[in-house]
Amino acid sequence: MVKINGNFKSLKTNYLFKNIGKKLAAFQAENPTASIIKMGIGDVTIPLCPPVTAAMAKAATEMGVKETFKGYEDNQGYDFLKSALVKYYQKRNVMLFPDEIFVGDGAKEDIANFLELFSPDNVVLIPDPVYPVYMDSNIMAGRNISLIDGNERNGFLPMPSEGLDADIIFLCSPNNPTGAVYTKEQLQEWVDFAREHKAIILFDAAYEAFISDDTLPHSIYEIEGAYEVAVEFCSLSKTAGFTGTRLGYTVVPERLKADGESLNKMWARRQGTKHNGVAYVIQRGAEAVFTEAGQKSCAETIEYYRGNAAIMAETFKYLNIWFTGGVNSPYIWLKCKKDSWAFFDELLSRAGVVGTPGSGFGKCGEGFFRLTAFNTRENTIEAMERIKRIFNRF
Amino acid sequence: MVKINGNFKSLKTNYLFKNIGKKLAAFQAENPTASIIKMGIGDVTIPLCPPVTAAMAKAATEMGVKETFKGYEDNQGYDFLKSALVKYYQKRNVMLFPDEIFVGDGAKEDIANFLELFSPDNVVLIPDPVYPVYMDSNIMAGRNISLIDGNERNGFLPMPSEGLDADIIFLCSPNNPTGAVYTKEQLQEWVDFAREHKAIILFDAAYEAFISDDTLPHSIYEIEGAYEVAVEFCSLSKTAGFTGTRLGYTVVPERLKADGESLNKMWARRQGTKHNGVAYVIQRGAEAVFTEAGQKSCAETIEYYRGNAAIMAETFKYLNIWFTGGVNSPYIWLKCKKDSWAFFDELLSRAGVVGTPGSGFGKCGEGFFRLTAFNTRENTIEAMERIKRIFNRF
Repeated sequence: MVKINGNFKSLKTNYLFKNIGKKLAAFQAENPTASIIKMGIGDVTIPLCPPVTAAMAKAATEMGVKETFKGYEDNQGYDFLKSALVKYYQKRNVMLFPDEIFVGDGAKEDIANFLELFSPDNVVLIPDPVYPVYMDSNIMAGRNISLIDGNERNGFLPMPSEGLDADIIFLCSPNNPTGAVYTKEQLQEWVDFAREHKAIILFDAAYEAFISDDTLPHSIYEIEGAYEVAVEFCSLSKTAGFTGTRLGYTVVPERLKADGESLNKMWARRQGTKHNGVAYVIQRGAEAVFTEAGQKSCAETIEYYRGNAAIMAETFKYLNIWFTGGVNSPYIWLKCKKDSWAFFDELLSRAGVVGTPGSGFGKCGEGFFRLTAFNTRENTIEAMERIKRIFNRF
Repeated sequence: MVKINGNFKSLKTNYLFKNIGKKLAAFQAENPTASIIKMGIGDVTIPLCPPVTAAMAKAATEMGVKETFKGYEDNQGYDFLKSALVKYYQKRNVMLFPDEIFVGDGAKEDIANFLELFSPDNVVLIPDPVYPVYMDSNIMAGRNISLIDGNERNGFLPMPSEGLDADIIFLCSPNNPTGAVYTKEQLQEWVDFAREHKAIILFDAAYEAFISDDTLPHSIYEIEGAYEVAVEFCSLSKTAGFTGTRLGYTVVPERLKADGESLNKMWARRQGTKHNGVAYVIQRGAEAVFTEAGQKSCAETIEYYRGNAAIMAETFKYLNIWFTGGVNSPYIWLKCKKDSWAFFDELLSRAGVVGTPGSGFGKCGEGFFRLTAFNTRENTIEAMERIKRIFNRF
């Protein structure tokens, strides 16, 4: 008789976005004319830039011509894209070989799949609040999870401390959901900790393009010693609006060893067995992101979202509400001084603004609330005006 | 200290295609003017059809316009594509609900990832010779593998027998590498066996579009009782030339239970956690495969490959060489009456034809050899003429 993976029974259903949808539907049914501004979901809204769509359309046409048609290729990614990524990293003095970069379907996919390289018998350290994929993918594999608290005191940037135990460490900076960003010095402490404990850092850099402060690290490899202890996951989802276009990349340095084994070779084997590469059309679109025209367009889009975030940050400063993010991140994580869901209800009913209750991201998220900058300028301004109006009355 | 997944150490490096490449390079160095015809790799060569490339180019353009831009969507696939697949299955009287279909990046990805739903503690039954992904993805998870022999006696269609033990059963029909196809009666025996043993069949239908004999099943769900015991994996790689475009689909019937649990719900959870769906542009290309124009174009392409296979089959009949496939499949699997690699060397040196030694697909492949129909008509004819010339001399 077939036996299922019993770890799936330990997964908790996260009703976060389902509950938000339900509450929103109920509100709209009662208030059919209410104008609602959605600042809940972390999805981009500005379309792909012209260089990217042109490159994809051209590639689609090439696929219809015998001489330029592409079948199976190296599952690790086309050289043209890996070269573009090598150059992108060079701008930050991060030197990579093309073979250290693996093109994949997205950071979510790669982070979750990368865990297959590790034994179930590891202590996994995960910050709370957290992007749920880190938790669930480890629960599915039956790993012991140890949480490290983010809170107002540490600015939602938990740090290693005496007695902390960890074999696999998840770090996300700029952080989802809190928008907080580690400094170089802070990441150096994590890298040193990992080296000392022979642990591996899985670094999620999905929001790196939102960093505007030049002193903050975009890549873990800007930190001394990181090549020996860290894997980096990134994607074009937030950098270039690829949430529905799907392309990520994972950096596994050749000198990175775990338990004496090369993680680069193990990941190459895993991908070779279970992955046939990303569509040619999509890889050509991704290549266009790294052209001069592509970089200029993407920078303009990010600047637009950043402008929204700045308006939000000013609002909460003016209201004297504590928050992280709002700069170097599309997220604002604010202290709501009450139950997250009560705050959700209040914001919806009194301001018509939808956000995400922090408690949906873990126990340390209780009492906090996430708003996103992925909206139009007009809606962002309008939402902040409404929020000012309701909170000034307190 | 981080501990790796030790099962990776049990993986054997498959040097099959690397060795073929080496031998070919050496031959070409010694015979720089030799005309080589490659019939080794199972990759398509005819470009995507016009309806597909036009749909992808249009979708790329839509992604650049605010009103038609797509971000995150249901990771299970767009309704437009799932509806097209529901209709495609209806033609064979297979009735599916859209929620029973999961759009993914390819059959290889889905087959390998689907195994995550099962405990390591299962007996996995795999036919030999075999598509290496079945073996390696189970070895990575530390499962016990039991092989069932394909051979000349059973026409490389192994069948269940008294005393056979299995919890998870891999079946691939039309088969890669042998081209052999199970009849409805044979698949009925497997379905009955699975029901009796409360086992699950993982059915790989990647080559179903090559079936020309109307009595042969394209889908496992044409077999009575299969909805309760089988998952089906298919892809557009061979159906529509998507090897470099990447789109597959997996059918998990709602009534299918394993160990009392719904595999449909478990797979939805796995995909929801570890997969963000297939690119919009690619899904629009896939939708076009199922339009009238798309079906006509794809049928023409397959007819072309079938014509090649028929020429190959005639040749080996004429030479009185035993084989499977050649009809209902792009593969011919022939008995070489000697060591597979010796046959490879002979074919290369005397006819300039490259094929794949059967021993690369498992111990039962020794003494056999695979040739593929994914070539031009001219090359196929030329290769068969050369083969006739060398073997008539024996």
